Amino acid sequence: MSSLQPQRTIDELKELRALTGNADGAQRVAWTDTWATARAWMKEKLAGLPVEYETDEAGNVWVTLRGKSDREMLIGGHIDSVPNGGWLDGCLNVMAGLEVLRRIASEGIPPVTVRLVDWADEEGARFGRSLFGSSACSGTMNPDDLRGLVDKQGIKLVDAIAKFGVNLDTAKQSHKQLKNAAAYLELHIEQGPVLESKNLPLGVVLGTFGVERHAIRFTGQSAHAGSTPMNQRRDAFGAAAKLGLEIREIAKRNGGVCTVGSVVTKPGIVTAVVGQCDITLDQRHMEAAALARMLQEAKDASERFAKEENVSVEWNRIWQIHPILFNPDLIELCDESIRETCGVVHRLPSGPLHDAAEVARAGVPTIMLFVQSLRGLSHAKEEDTKEEHLVLCVEALDRLATKTMKWIQSKN
Amino acid sequence: MSSLQPQRTIDELKELRALTGNADGAQRVAWTDTWATARAWMKEKLAGLPVEYETDEAGNVWVTLRGKSDREMLIGGHIDSVPNGGWLDGCLNVMAGLEVLRRIASEGIPPVTVRLVDWADEEGARFGRSLFGSSACSGTMNPDDLRGLVDKQGIKLVDAIAKFGVNLDTAKQSHKQLKNAAAYLELHIEQGPVLESKNLPLGVVLGTFGVERHAIRFTGQSAHAGSTPMNQRRDAFGAAAKLGLEIREIAKRNGGVCTVGSVVTKPGIVTAVVGQCDITLDQRHMEAAALARMLQEAKDASERFAKEENVSVEWNRIWQIHPILFNPDLIELCDESIRETCGVVHRLPSGPLHDAAEVARAGVPTIMLFVQSLRGLSHAKEEDTKEEHLVLCVEALDRLATKTMKWIQSKN
Repeated sequence: MSSLQPQRTIDELKELRALTGNADGAQRVAWTDTWATARAWMKEKLAGLPVEYETDEAGNVWVTLRGKSDREMLIGGHIDSVPNGGWLDGCLNVMAGLEVLRRIASEGIPPVTVRLVDWADEEGARFGRSLFGSSACSGTMNPDDLRGLVDKQGIKLVDAIAKFGVNLDTAKQSHKQLKNAAAYLELHIEQGPVLESKNLPLGVVLGTFGVERHAIRFTGQSAHAGSTPMNQRRDAFGAAAKLGLEIREIAKRNGGVCTVGSVVTKPGIVTAVVGQCDITLDQRHMEAAALARMLQEAKDASERFAKEENVSVEWNRIWQIHPILFNPDLIELCDESIRETCGVVHRLPSGPLHDAAEVARAGVPTIMLFVQSLRGLSHAKEEDTKEEHLVLCVEALDRLATKTMKWIQSKN
Repeated sequence: MSSLQPQRTIDELKELRALTGNADGAQRVAWTDTWATARAWMKEKLAGLPVEYETDEAGNVWVTLRGKSDREMLIGGHIDSVPNGGWLDGCLNVMAGLEVLRRIASEGIPPVTVRLVDWADEEGARFGRSLFGSSACSGTMNPDDLRGLVDKQGIKLVDAIAKFGVNLDTAKQSHKQLKNAAAYLELHIEQGPVLESKNLPLGVVLGTFGVERHAIRFTGQSAHAGSTPMNQRRDAFGAAAKLGLEIREIAKRNGGVCTVGSVVTKPGIVTAVVGQCDITLDQRHMEAAALARMLQEAKDASERFAKEENVSVEWNRIWQIHPILFNPDLIELCDESIRETCGVVHRLPSGPLHDAAEVARAGVPTIMLFVQSLRGLSHAKEEDTKEEHLVLCVEALDRLATKTMKWIQSKN
């Protein structure tokens, strides 16, 4: 009987990096040859395991270890990456899940069915639409939103996915994969600085933030920087700067995060007062009511600043999603698993979205655990996690899998 | 004896607009055929006047009415425009000057020599270098700064000016035109909102602002908008926004103007904290000491904000010019002329630079007068001034010319 070998996960991640990365980082962009190479490599790793392998209508790969019950515990991840990505984002989840699958399989037929899922195109790096496979599977995808998408080379999403046997109009049939799902587990690097700042290796994820994303336009009057006295200006940037500072106070006051990520000034020349200033605002919170409050406070502030600066303001929603809370029982099991692994735990929300959010939206009891990211860096070749922490996260996921199988049995 | 006919100036400006403008505005960009058309049209207007016409080594046109003395009173303007420009900027000066020249010529040989100058390429619209002709003539031009300039079509400045017989290496020989200059007068539209806000038609210009122009870069750390808590951010836009608001207080406190005209954020995406923020700062003041103080206060503030936001800040000077004060005697004469014309006067600095600044730098006693601009608009087809104010400004320039000739005589 082979026991869990977390070092094997690290070795395999390095092997994958050598196979599908280059000097600029990981290149496993979904719907490309390199992605196919990564998936074929992963399939080879299954040789000798008593598992079934299938690809569903959305391009998700399912590896199934049949148990004594049809009730299923899913362990998920994504082997695709952004261009010039890191060596852990997404593939750590898959390879750690595979290691746990190996350990379970080595012990004979498990009490429940265990499935490893490699979601298709989590990153959305090529067509700008993330969570492709998991949103098709959960049922939240609207195919018409994706039909017109093209990549930078002008290739259509529909043509790119057709090469992998995926059709937008049938992709959502993958939903049937969740029919017997009783729990979904996902390990991920944190991609943020919280665990590192607390000097903790692992954390329980409470859920994913709700997000409000808006484009805000302030319109004043462009005017000559030399001939226009300060008190006669209608300075669109003045109002935008005030809002840019105020949203940080709103975030702190409400316990969320708010970010102005893009600022564009027009005419945008050194000798002209800014006549038009476009900014983006991204607001996130774990609680729907607090998120709504942060949005309202930002809108109120923008109106106030527009008035002060004698400019107008216009809001347009880019995107929104409600907060998604993970399963309370699984949160407790995850907490225990981490404590048993390293003695100390922290609970935190996830800022970024993950496939787990889609699975949770489909009604499957879901939990994630985070492992520390160094310097919070991700989506870059500098993305890294200490190897001792990688060992711990595989161990914690393994403990969580054992506890979750028992939990599923107890609920039958 | 024909007396001054200000209405003729208005009529001629409309004629010029019809000849060299289109639905988008004036198109008399220097070193183009349309500019040449405008100049040929102006030359025709001289028919019958006892004047000499010459073009100097920098492409400036000089129209000379010989007087009893070699001492010269210069009246200046520029017939070139920006693309899609207004119907007054620059050419009002030339056509009003011509009307004054006609009036003086109609009275016989004047006591001093009177010269009308049409400066070449005041706007710098095509090659990005304003005050071409006047800076060559004043001697401040450094030909090597211009040698590499190209327009948007890739045509070199040196080739474009060669078609008009101008050579960078001899352009500064035009300086000899100022040998006998005893005074320089320039009328211009204000291009700002001050006179309109005070409901005044005309103003005496005290001089041109000194300018400090800098590029400022704040460098923090780009980070995920969802996973990075507010207190762990190094937000480059936070520091830039603070400075953008603070420079307005600095301007008000010191009685100058400060403008952040361009803001560029990187990576500049909705989901990332701004890692790098580049802004431009334009500061102007009539007093050199106050300008230096405004600059130092902005630098100090930027260091303070960089520290608060845990980012770095770097300043690079784009351009600077010292304040240029006009001649105190001519300021008084201009003040009198305006009072006699419309009963009320206002003294104000010029925010934009003008050819007059170059002439003043060459040591010629210089004065400008402004006529009200509607809504402060310029460099746009919407640029406009009430016709009754145009009449007044020609009358005031005429009075000023008479007083200046007497002043020149009194100094001989």
